[in-house]
Amino acid sequence: MEDRIRKTITRQCRAIFPNTLNANNTLFGGEAMKWMDEVAYITATRFTRQKMFTVKTEDIKFLKSIHPNSIVEVIGKIEKADPLKLRVILEMYSEDMYSDSREKVMESVFIFVALNEHNKPMRIDYSRFEKEFELV
Amino acid sequence: MEDRIRKTITRQCRAIFPNTLNANNTLFGGEAMKWMDEVAYITATRFTRQKMFTVKTEDIKFLKSIHPNSIVEVIGKIEKADPLKLRVILEMYSEDMYSDSREKVMESVFIFVALNEHNKPMRIDYSRFEKEFELV
Amino acid sequence: MEDRIRKTITRQCRAIFPNTLNANNTLFGGEAMKWMDEVAYITATRFTRQKMFTVKTEDIKFLKSIHPNSIVEVIGKIEKADPLKLRVILEMYSEDMYSDSREKVMESVFIFVALNEHNKPMRIDYSRFEKEFELV
Amino acid sequence: MEDRIRKTITRQCRAIFPNTLNANNTLFGGEAMKWMDEVAYITATRFTRQKMFTVKTEDIKFLKSIHPNSIVEVIGKIEKADPLKLRVILEMYSEDMYSDSREKVMESVFIFVALNEHNKPMRIDYSRFEKEFELV
Amino acid sequence: MEDRIRKTITRQCRAIFPNTLNANNTLFGGEAMKWMDEVAYITATRFTRQKMFTVKTEDIKFLKSIHPNSIVEVIGKIEKADPLKLRVILEMYSEDMYSDSREKVMESVFIFVALNEHNKPMRIDYSRFEKEFELV
Amino acid sequence: MEDRIRKTITRQCRAIFPNTLNANNTLFGGEAMKWMDEVAYITATRFTRQKMFTVKTEDIKFLKSIHPNSIVEVIGKIEKADPLKLRVILEMYSEDMYSDSREKVMESVFIFVALNEHNKPMRIDYSRFEKEFELV
Repeated sequence: MEDRIRKTITRQCRAIFPNTLNANNTLFGGEAMKWMDEVAYITATRFTRQKMFTVKTEDIKFLKSIHPNSIVEVIGKIEKADPLKLRVILEMYSEDMYSDSREKVMESVFIFVALNEHNKPMRIDYSRFEKEFELV
Repeated sequence: MEDRIRKTITRQCRAIFPNTLNANNTLFGGEAMKWMDEVAYITATRFTRQKMFTVKTEDIKFLKSIHPNSIVEVIGKIEKADPLKLRVILEMYSEDMYSDSREKVMESVFIFVALNEHNKPMRIDYSRFEKEFELV
Repeated sequence: MEDRIRKTITRQCRAIFPNTLNANNTLFGGEAMKWMDEVAYITATRFTRQKMFTVKTEDIKFLKSIHPNSIVEVIGKIEKADPLKLRVILEMYSEDMYSDSREKVMESVFIFVALNEHNKPMRIDYSRFEKEFELV
Repeated sequence: MEDRIRKTITRQCRAIFPNTLNANNTLFGGEAMKWMDEVAYITATRFTRQKMFTVKTEDIKFLKSIHPNSIVEVIGKIEKADPLKLRVILEMYSEDMYSDSREKVMESVFIFVALNEHNKPMRIDYSRFEKEFELV
Repeated sequence: MEDRIRKTITRQCRAIFPNTLNANNTLFGGEAMKWMDEVAYITATRFTRQKMFTVKTEDIKFLKSIHPNSIVEVIGKIEKADPLKLRVILEMYSEDMYSDSREKVMESVFIFVALNEHNKPMRIDYSRFEKEFELV
Repeated sequence: MEDRIRKTITRQCRAIFPNTLNANNTLFGGEAMKWMDEVAYITATRFTRQKMFTVKTEDIKFLKSIHPNSIVEVIGKIEKADPLKLRVILEMYSEDMYSDSREKVMESVFIFVALNEHNKPMRIDYSRFEKEFELV
């Protein structure tokens, strides 16, 4: 399990371009939430290879506002996998484009369930992916 | 205060078009979160007429998946206004395009602070808007 | 009929973010027209709960240019409903983010027909929605 | 003048991809209106090389719905240039991707004024562009 | 053949609005590449009226950065048509909005194959379009 | 140098949603090129912490078409850094959402120069980043 958690860590780097800004000329929080949800969904899908549905996001904390001339990286990692729910930790880091500084700017936990072919929640089957697996 | 809360209720209706869908052909949750954040920000700004910043979203609950041939409405309303924080309730309702059915599909509370001209948090000033005000 | 017109008034509030601007740093008119058409379509669909198609927009008047640090609200309301055509009045209001000012900035009338299952125009059936209906 | 009208005809071809569709799986009219406004603005700017502002669109007629597997072309052409107003004819044609058929699907006239450095309407100066000019 | 090459030249004019810019406030190259690919695809499809797939882009040269207050035009034209591959030349020109200057800013060649109903490459059939054809 | 190349490898995972598709219901190549250019730009900026400009992309090869129900990952890595040019290798991998399969689907090399404060090309300075640096 530990091995699969490590191998399914998911990253999405983004450059802060003008089409991502709000009226204060900082990253629009709703855009960041959209990136988080895409990363969370990919992390959960890669881990289970089943049809996953977000049922809840826990507190999303906006630790800092993000300025133009930044690069951000959203990282998703499985926190806890039980038969009914899958918890994914989401973190967003921001780097200044023109220096090596880097700090955490957003964090949350998103919770997923698996859906069956009728789109009803079902138990998550973790026995299907014991084989060797490597994302190059 | 009650009067201003009522007058600053903010609505954003959206049609579920293909560019809003995820891989399961239901509304992409990240898109819905982006709509919620825009509505929350407008509600908070209208209520205070000050520069507002989202510091946290409480649990966002996805009660149902939303299908094509739906209309959704995101509604923001001030829940509690104190000098340090402003709480905005967000709800999303979904209607079937071709019948009068309507049900709640998402809900959350978003928390804002006011920023001063140096983008530092400051007390929210609620005394500035006692005059008559009506959004026609 | 009056009651249903009132209940199907449709609102879409939007914040003026950089991705909505034109080369003059004011709201791009084409973006505003897109919002109007989405609101018009929702208003017509809610009123009839039938498949609606825009056949014409009458004069769209741009009364003012809209600047950053604005909130706009597009409002759609049924103007006239006859068996062949449905007329929807569209208005857009702009508010300064940091004061209670508000004024009308765009207006038009969009005209819809109903389509049958072969996508051919058919008479609009207004008898199907006499029951109680309330958008909370 | 005739020569400059001919040289500033402006074309924007677009492929009908899923992100342009409405709930009926035909081209969303609001998207088409956005393309029209961009083409109208470019036509007016190319003709005058002055800061132009859309004050009105006359009737926009949607002659047909546009299906996937179509290519569309929006064409803007100056209709009439007088010192106070510039009229631009807009037409949209649709081609089936897999045959040589082509037909007109939208048409309108957009009306522009010129703005001075204070963003106030001013007379349009047509004397500035008598030199040779060719869009290769 | 020469006649059909001339008739299928494809143009897409775009205004440089803030949502097209990168962190340096010049046109984001990735956005320009996206426009090029849409134009290349339309040119290839118009020429063959068959299902086309981009297999390769040759060197894409960015000759200049593009500033706000510019209009660009992407132009696609068939370079060479043989039974296995179709080569499309792409050029992008930039004009200053407020003068008649115009210069080439990007160029490349995109290479397409035709796909059969199983999405496998097949010979391109150029015999099907001998009839009269005119894009008005 | 080897250490910094390893530490600045940049990843962008994306889910294939309907708004990324072309008329054949496969990933639109122009969208993929846009993702590649964003990743290339971030890789080059992270490596040099200087203002970088894409001057050329070498052949971009589309090895396979990408279907819905896929996850893709774009990966950028410095290939060669000399005082005048920086070469970034780009690869895109596709995974089936519901199995552990993974294969390369696109590849290219993008070439960057550094710009000075007047946006003119200048020598790239690689001596500035010898300190410890770790992207957590």
